[in-house]
Amino acid sequence: MITAFSDRLADAVRAKSSSLVVGLDPVLERLPTELLESARSQYDDPRDQAAAAMIQFSRAVIDQVADKACAVKPQIAYFEQWGPPGLVAFEQTVIMARDAGLLVIADVKRGDIGSTSAAYVRAHLDPPLPEVRADAVTVNPYLGSDCLAPYLKAVDDLGAGLFVLVRTSNPSAGELQDQRSGEMAVHERVADLVAGWGSERLGQCGYSSVGAVVGATAPEQLAALRKRMPTTWFLLPGVGAQGATAADVACAFDDDGLGAVVNSSRGILYAYGDPGQEDWREAISDAATTLRDQLRDAALGASAE
Amino acid sequence: MITAFSDRLADAVRAKSSSLVVGLDPVLERLPTELLESARSQYDDPRDQAAAAMIQFSRAVIDQVADKACAVKPQIAYFEQWGPPGLVAFEQTVIMARDAGLLVIADVKRGDIGSTSAAYVRAHLDPPLPEVRADAVTVNPYLGSDCLAPYLKAVDDLGAGLFVLVRTSNPSAGELQDQRSGEMAVHERVADLVAGWGSERLGQCGYSSVGAVVGATAPEQLAALRKRMPTTWFLLPGVGAQGATAADVACAFDDDGLGAVVNSSRGILYAYGDPGQEDWREAISDAATTLRDQLRDAALGASAE
Repeated sequence: MITAFSDRLADAVRAKSSSLVVGLDPVLERLPTELLESARSQYDDPRDQAAAAMIQFSRAVIDQVADKACAVKPQIAYFEQWGPPGLVAFEQTVIMARDAGLLVIADVKRGDIGSTSAAYVRAHLDPPLPEVRADAVTVNPYLGSDCLAPYLKAVDDLGAGLFVLVRTSNPSAGELQDQRSGEMAVHERVADLVAGWGSERLGQCGYSSVGAVVGATAPEQLAALRKRMPTTWFLLPGVGAQGATAADVACAFDDDGLGAVVNSSRGILYAYGDPGQEDWREAISDAATTLRDQLRDAALGASAE
Repeated sequence: MITAFSDRLADAVRAKSSSLVVGLDPVLERLPTELLESARSQYDDPRDQAAAAMIQFSRAVIDQVADKACAVKPQIAYFEQWGPPGLVAFEQTVIMARDAGLLVIADVKRGDIGSTSAAYVRAHLDPPLPEVRADAVTVNPYLGSDCLAPYLKAVDDLGAGLFVLVRTSNPSAGELQDQRSGEMAVHERVADLVAGWGSERLGQCGYSSVGAVVGATAPEQLAALRKRMPTTWFLLPGVGAQGATAADVACAFDDDGLGAVVNSSRGILYAYGDPGQEDWREAISDAATTLRDQLRDAALGASAE
C-alpha cells in the first residue's frame, strides 16, 4: 500500500515540526572553497570537478538540514548545465536526501505534449533506477490538461506528488499569469484546474497530492488563492533572497499548521557569505533553524487568529 | 563574426531546398530490433543499453536525413528518462547532427526564473563543452519576460536561436493559450512579446532569431499568427502523426519559401512500422524525402498565389 504524497508531506511536517523546504541550487562560484579545491585535486575535467563539488555540497547541506526541513527541492538546471556528470550529481543528491529521511521535490518545471510528458514522468517519478525517484515534481501548465495526464497517472499509481506552477514569484510573473479574462486571471484558471485535479485525489490529511506553486512575493494573491484552492498543498518560493518574509505566508497555513511548505534556497545555502569561511556548515544549519522557527511562529500565529 | 541563427536557418533552408526538421524522439520499444539486440549484447545496465541503442538510431537517422532536412530537433525527454547515460546519448546526437551539417534545435521547453534560466542557457546554448552546443532551444513563456532575458542575451552574444511556445499542437493547448482577455487571447499576447523581442534581432534574411512554436493542427490560428508575427521564424509541429498536412501550413511561408520550418518526428522515425523490418533505413529516407517534397510544393504554392 503506497501512502499518498499529500500524507507523506503532512507526516513530515508534523514529525519535524517544520514547513521548511531547502532548495538545492548549487552555484559553483558560491560553493565553499574547500569543496572546490578538493574536487579540482581529484578530477581534471571541469564537468567532473563541478559534479564532485556539488555532490559534496549536497551531502553537507543534507546533513545540516535533515532534522530541520520536511523536504529538499533540488533545482535540476544547476546540475543539467554540467551535462551527464551534473545529472549524476543530481541523482546522488536525490539518493542522499531520501536516505536522510527527507522528501524530494524535483524542481524540473517540465511541461510538454502528452507522450513527451510520459517520458518526463519516467525520468523523475518512475525511473528505471528506483532509488533516484523523486517524491514530487514541479510542472508547467502552459500546454493544458493533456500535458498533466501522465503526471496525474503517477499520482494515482505511484503515490507521486505534483506542484503545478500557478502564480510564480519572479518579477515578470504577472505578464501572462495575471492576464484577465472577464472575472478570471490566467493563474486563477490554472488554480481551478489544479483544484479540480486535486479534488479526486485527497489524502487522509485533507489535502491533495496535486499541489500548487504560489509565489510568496504577492501576499494578496496568496490569500485569494488559498481560498480558491482550500485543499491544495502550496509550495511557496520567494521567501528570503527574493524578498518575502515568513509573516507574508502566514495566511497559507491552516489551524494545524498544514497546507503549505515554504522554500528557501540561496538564503540558506549561501548563509555563510564568503566561500572561504570555515564554519560554513554552521551558518547553513543556523539559517535553516532560524527560518524553520519563523515559519513555525507564522503558522501558529495563523492558527491563533 | 557570428552569423545569427535566423540567417543560419535561412541558409540551410536554401541550401537543402528543404523546410523539413526531423524530430528525434527515440522511443525504445519502437527502435529497430537489430539496434536493440546489438545494445543488449554490449551492455548489462538497461540505461546503458538504451543509450547505446539511441546513439545508433540517431546516427542512422542523421545519415539518412542529412541531405533532406535543414535541422533536427532532439526531444530531450526521451533521453532524460534514461538518466546520465541518456544525456550522454543526447550529447552524442547533438555532436553527430552538427558534424553532418544539420542545425540542432534542442527541444527542451525549459522556462524558469531568471537565475535558473541562465543555468539552462549554459546547459544547452553555452555549455562547458562547446561541441554539445545546440543552435537553438524551445522555451516555455509562462513565467514572462525575465525568464526569457538570459536566452535573449544568448541570441545577442552567441548567435543562438529560440523558439518560444506560442500556440502548441496538442489537443488541450487551448485551455490556457486561447483564454481571451477582451480582444486578445493569451497566445496572442505571447505572440506580441515574441514579435517585440524579435524586432530588435532581425537577421539579413528578414527574420529574427526569436522564433515561435505554432502548432500546424490549427490552420486558422496559424494564418492569424503569421500576420501577427510577420518577421518571426515559425517552428511548426503537428504535421504527420498529429494529423496536420503540408497543405495546412502553406500560409506560413513567404514568397521565397522562408519563414517557417516544419517538424515531423514519429512520421519519419518510425516510417518502417515493424521494428523487425530490415530496410528500416530506406523507409526513414523515403519518408523524409516525401515530406520534404510536399513542403516544397506547399511553400511554392503559397508563393504562386
